[in-house]
Amino acid sequence: MANEHPASGEDSLIARYFKPIATDPGAFGLTDDAAILKADGEDLVVTTDAVVEGVHFLSDDPPETLARKALRVNLSDLAAKGATPAGFVLTLALRTADDAWLSAFARGLGEDAGHYACPLLGGDTVSTPGPLTVSITAFGRVPQGKMVRRSGARPGDRVMVTGTIGDAALGLAILKGGAVAAALASDTAARDRLVGRYRLPEPRNALAAAIREHASAAMDVSDGLAGDLTKLCAASGVSAVIDAPRVPTSAAAADLLARGIVGAEALIAGGDDFEVLCAVPDAACAAFADAARQAGVALTSIGAVVAGAGPVRFLDARGRDMVLARLSYSHF
Amino acid sequence: MANEHPASGEDSLIARYFKPIATDPGAFGLTDDAAILKADGEDLVVTTDAVVEGVHFLSDDPPETLARKALRVNLSDLAAKGATPAGFVLTLALRTADDAWLSAFARGLGEDAGHYACPLLGGDTVSTPGPLTVSITAFGRVPQGKMVRRSGARPGDRVMVTGTIGDAALGLAILKGGAVAAALASDTAARDRLVGRYRLPEPRNALAAAIREHASAAMDVSDGLAGDLTKLCAASGVSAVIDAPRVPTSAAAADLLARGIVGAEALIAGGDDFEVLCAVPDAACAAFADAARQAGVALTSIGAVVAGAGPVRFLDARGRDMVLARLSYSHF
Repeated sequence: MANEHPASGEDSLIARYFKPIATDPGAFGLTDDAAILKADGEDLVVTTDAVVEGVHFLSDDPPETLARKALRVNLSDLAAKGATPAGFVLTLALRTADDAWLSAFARGLGEDAGHYACPLLGGDTVSTPGPLTVSITAFGRVPQGKMVRRSGARPGDRVMVTGTIGDAALGLAILKGGAVAAALASDTAARDRLVGRYRLPEPRNALAAAIREHASAAMDVSDGLAGDLTKLCAASGVSAVIDAPRVPTSAAAADLLARGIVGAEALIAGGDDFEVLCAVPDAACAAFADAARQAGVALTSIGAVVAGAGPVRFLDARGRDMVLARLSYSHF
Repeated sequence: MANEHPASGEDSLIARYFKPIATDPGAFGLTDDAAILKADGEDLVVTTDAVVEGVHFLSDDPPETLARKALRVNLSDLAAKGATPAGFVLTLALRTADDAWLSAFARGLGEDAGHYACPLLGGDTVSTPGPLTVSITAFGRVPQGKMVRRSGARPGDRVMVTGTIGDAALGLAILKGGAVAAALASDTAARDRLVGRYRLPEPRNALAAAIREHASAAMDVSDGLAGDLTKLCAASGVSAVIDAPRVPTSAAAADLLARGIVGAEALIAGGDDFEVLCAVPDAACAAFADAARQAGVALTSIGAVVAGAGPVRFLDARGRDMVLARLSYSHF
C-alpha cells in the first residue's frame, strides 16, 4: 500500500487563508520555498518590524486591525524612506490555528495589501507556546541611490511632521484604563478616534515621492517624536530646536493637554504615531507643502535643524527648555 | 535645561552586538530604518524562516549554534533555489537582553554571515514575555527567470538528494533522551555527530550553481524527506518511486536502523535535514554528479519521477511499498 497524501495542517492553512492575497506572480501562489522580487534597475528598500501580543498590541485587539497594523508599521518605514511598496513576507507565530481568527486576520491583511499595492510574497507559519507574534519584512523601490536617509539633515533645514502626534499613545492609555479613559468617559467619539489611531496607523505612502524629492532626511515616528528626532539628528550630526506648541495635536489630545489630564511629554515621547518626521531645506518647503496638500496629508513645520551635537531642545510657549524625563519607548 | 541623549537600551544593544556584523554598505551600519539591496538586473530570491524556542530548538541549545541554525535554514532554501546569498534581515524576540547570550549569538551569526557571504542588512529587536523567537528573511540572487522551482520535475527525471537523511531527527531524539540516547549511551562520538547535525545543518550553497544548471526542480528537506518529496511532486504534477534502501544514511543512523532501535520512517519523515532534494533529467545526471564531487557535496540518486498524481511510493529492499504513518512534521 502506498502512502496517503494528507495536506499538512500548515500547508492547508496557508493555501486557505494566505494564497488568495498572494497575488503577485513572484509569490508563485505560496507553493514554493521562496519568492522572486524583480528590481529593474531600481534599488530595493528592505525594512522589518515585528509586533508581539502584550507588548505592541493587546490580546483583545481585533485580528483585522492587528494584521493591518503589522503591515502598516512597515509601510510607514517605506513611506519615510521615499520608497514605493513592492511586497512583503510574513512570519506568523501562533499558539493555535483558529479559523475565525485567521480568516479575519487574512482579510484585514489582504485589504491593506491591495490598498497599498504591497502584495504578500511569502512567509512562514510556526507554532509557539508564547504570545502571538507577527513579523513582517517589507520591500519598496526607489530610483538608484535615492533612498531618503536619516543622515542628510543640515543646519537651517525645517523640521516637519505629518498628521498629529500623541494620539496613538492616548489610545493605548484609554485601552489600559486609568486617567485618560476616565477623562473621556462621556466622549465615546473621542475615545474611539484615539483608540483607532493606536490600532490602525495611517502610513503616509501618498507622500513618499514628495519626501524623496524634497526631504534631506526622514524617518517615521514609531518610538516617540522626541526620541526619534534625537536619532535623526544623531545620524545627521546636527541638533534641532522644536517649538513644542507647534507640534500638531488632534482636538482630543489638545483638550486633554489643556485640562491637565496629560502632559506634553505623554504626547511627544509616546510612540506608535507612525507619522513621517523629516528635515526639509528652506528652499524646498513651499513645494513640499504643496505636494502634501495634493496628497491630502497634513504637514506641519515644528522647528529647525541647528548645528552642533547637543541634545534636541523642545521649547515651551514661553521659549523655555522643556525637561523630558523620557524621550521614547525602548524595549530593553 | 535641555534633554539628555541617553542611547536607548535597544539601540545600544544593536550597535554593540549586531553593527559589527552588518558589513554590507546597504546596511548603513544599522543606523537607518531600512536597508538597500542592489539588484543589477538579476532576480532577487526571498525566503523567510523562523525558529521558536521549545519548538524548533531547545532552551539549552548554545546561542552560537542557534544563531547559525536560524541563518542556515534560510541559506538552505537559497541553495535549493539555485541562488547566491545576498544578505538577510533578523527579527529577534527576546525575554531579556543578556550580554553573554547576545554576545555568543552575534558571534555565531557573524561567523556564518562571513562564511556564506550573506551579510546582516537590518532587523528588529523586540521584547517578548514568551519563548525566544528568531525570524530571518534572507535574500539571494539568480539570473533573471532562473530560480529553480518545485514545479519543474518531469517523468523520467532522477530523484537526487545531498548528504545523509535522518541524522538531525536522531540528534533531536538523543537530546530528548529515550531509546536512541540509551542505544548510543557508550558511543559519545556518534551521539555528538547526530546532535551536531540537529544543531548545525550544512546548507548546500556550494552546489547552488550546479542545481540551477542541472535540476528541473528542487527544494530543501526541512520537514522530512517523504513529505517534502510529496510537496515537490504535487507542485510538478507528477509522482515518484523511491528505492528506500538507497536513501543515504550516516553510519550511526544505519546502525540504529539495523539494530531495530529506529524504523526507516523516523529517518525519512524526521525533518531538520536541510539537504537538497531535486529532480534531474537523465541526460544531466553525470554532469551534476561531477559538479557535486567538485563542490565536495555527497549526492545520491534515490529514485525516479513518474507520471501521474498518485502518492509518492517508497519501496523497501524487497520492492514492497512501505507504509508510512506520517510523512513529515507539521505545525498545526
